[in-house]
Amino acid sequence: MPAIRHPVTVEWGHCDPAGIVYFPNYFSFFDASTNALFLRALGFNKYEMLKQYDIVGIPVVDVTARFIAPSAFGDVVMIESTVVEIRRSSFRMLHQLLKDETLAVEAHEVRVWAGRDPADPAKLKGKPIPQDVIARLKG
Amino acid sequence: MPAIRHPVTVEWGHCDPAGIVYFPNYFSFFDASTNALFLRALGFNKYEMLKQYDIVGIPVVDVTARFIAPSAFGDVVMIESTVVEIRRSSFRMLHQLLKDETLAVEAHEVRVWAGRDPADPAKLKGKPIPQDVIARLKG
Amino acid sequence: MPAIRHPVTVEWGHCDPAGIVYFPNYFSFFDASTNALFLRALGFNKYEMLKQYDIVGIPVVDVTARFIAPSAFGDVVMIESTVVEIRRSSFRMLHQLLKDETLAVEAHEVRVWAGRDPADPAKLKGKPIPQDVIARLKG
Amino acid sequence: MPAIRHPVTVEWGHCDPAGIVYFPNYFSFFDASTNALFLRALGFNKYEMLKQYDIVGIPVVDVTARFIAPSAFGDVVMIESTVVEIRRSSFRMLHQLLKDETLAVEAHEVRVWAGRDPADPAKLKGKPIPQDVIARLKG
Repeated sequence: MPAIRHPVTVEWGHCDPAGIVYFPNYFSFFDASTNALFLRALGFNKYEMLKQYDIVGIPVVDVTARFIAPSAFGDVVMIESTVVEIRRSSFRMLHQLLKDETLAVEAHEVRVWAGRDPADPAKLKGKPIPQDVIARLKG
Repeated sequence: MPAIRHPVTVEWGHCDPAGIVYFPNYFSFFDASTNALFLRALGFNKYEMLKQYDIVGIPVVDVTARFIAPSAFGDVVMIESTVVEIRRSSFRMLHQLLKDETLAVEAHEVRVWAGRDPADPAKLKGKPIPQDVIARLKG
Repeated sequence: MPAIRHPVTVEWGHCDPAGIVYFPNYFSFFDASTNALFLRALGFNKYEMLKQYDIVGIPVVDVTARFIAPSAFGDVVMIESTVVEIRRSSFRMLHQLLKDETLAVEAHEVRVWAGRDPADPAKLKGKPIPQDVIARLKG
Repeated sequence: MPAIRHPVTVEWGHCDPAGIVYFPNYFSFFDASTNALFLRALGFNKYEMLKQYDIVGIPVVDVTARFIAPSAFGDVVMIESTVVEIRRSSFRMLHQLLKDETLAVEAHEVRVWAGRDPADPAKLKGKPIPQDVIARLKG
């Protein structure tokens, strides 16, 4: 299964009055990491991916996260993201944020390969993940 | 156990290119809701609360969330937040976001009553929740 | 010219490690205020507005802002937004953020009534503001 | 005067329902760029800088920006930031965001070298920029 590992600099604007990363921002970090993994695996960026496969996104439907140690602005942390399971129209991501080689945040996401619901375009609906996407993600 | 219920308008800036709330923002909504609940229960705002009790915050250490239905800009959703469990130095929140009376997002958070770690001020450390806070939260 | 005045609670998540509003967030406050003004003037929300008039948004093309006094979390500030000028395909907004009746932030925005550029859908292009919109904004 | 030039990937979460960067996020990009420039010029990060010089930040007091062309998710843009003027207790930054070698956003910021106001710790007050900081910024 593919994994991606990249450093992230914790910016002043990511942090709250306690001087540590405001926790919703970790989910933005992980979302960007998921997109970077798909970019690498599929060879085109998210915008192209959505057009190519006629989907509106890969929204998270389920998430769990543990915040073990805080990070402060100026820290350069490492994020490792891995596709850990692929189902018919969804997949599961594991994100680990390491600070000085120590696990600081861990999150699991279930994401859906989602198009517009034909019955109601305001809603999203899971679509089967194409075989070539599965092949590349497993590659 | 205390609960708070308040409407939130989904703004353009909360939404992503799919036209729906970018999911990390839900955690900001819930964080604001937790603070509003404490404001109501304790009678002073978070800034005063931190000074009064000599803590640096009530950070989330564990979170789970299910995203059942998306919300789009212009939607006015209802958020209900409840303290569902109080332990020695942590407590658990339940947040439910309702759209047209239907559950759209549900999240559980474990939060810690946290001060600076005397051994290392860069770290946070749980402190016992004061009895008067427990009494008011249970009120 | 129409004006709107509404209170905003400064949340923990709006603030930076200095304990004050992270300045990009003021522009989000003002953006939401602009949308609230249009909702009131036109009678439908932004999503409906975009569909009704076949535009993709009312993006800011020019902004100036002065940050006179900081606001901290827990503050309840007042935002007053006014349409101060309407041109053919753009308009100018004035936003004033008051803290305890004193001007704390002031911003001017020029916004465009923007559709997709027929020659290149990746680009935006100003369209004439419809007469009924002008009438209601002036109302 | 020192300049810094670095690429930024426009993420899904930076963009709004029109599919383009939500404009307040440009100010976050520029803020991070300012901090990166100081890190390079002074040799330590913002956290260390604040401690070293006993300041609470370098807040923006005045900003002007022009948004010439939008950027969409997946774009990799280039940001060039320069200190263009240094005064006694403030300085001026110029930020230029280039997309495919073309100027897409330009912003000028006046920032203050700010400590707590001795007369009222809730307020910020400009302090003289230390000579060694000026020397390194001019270096």
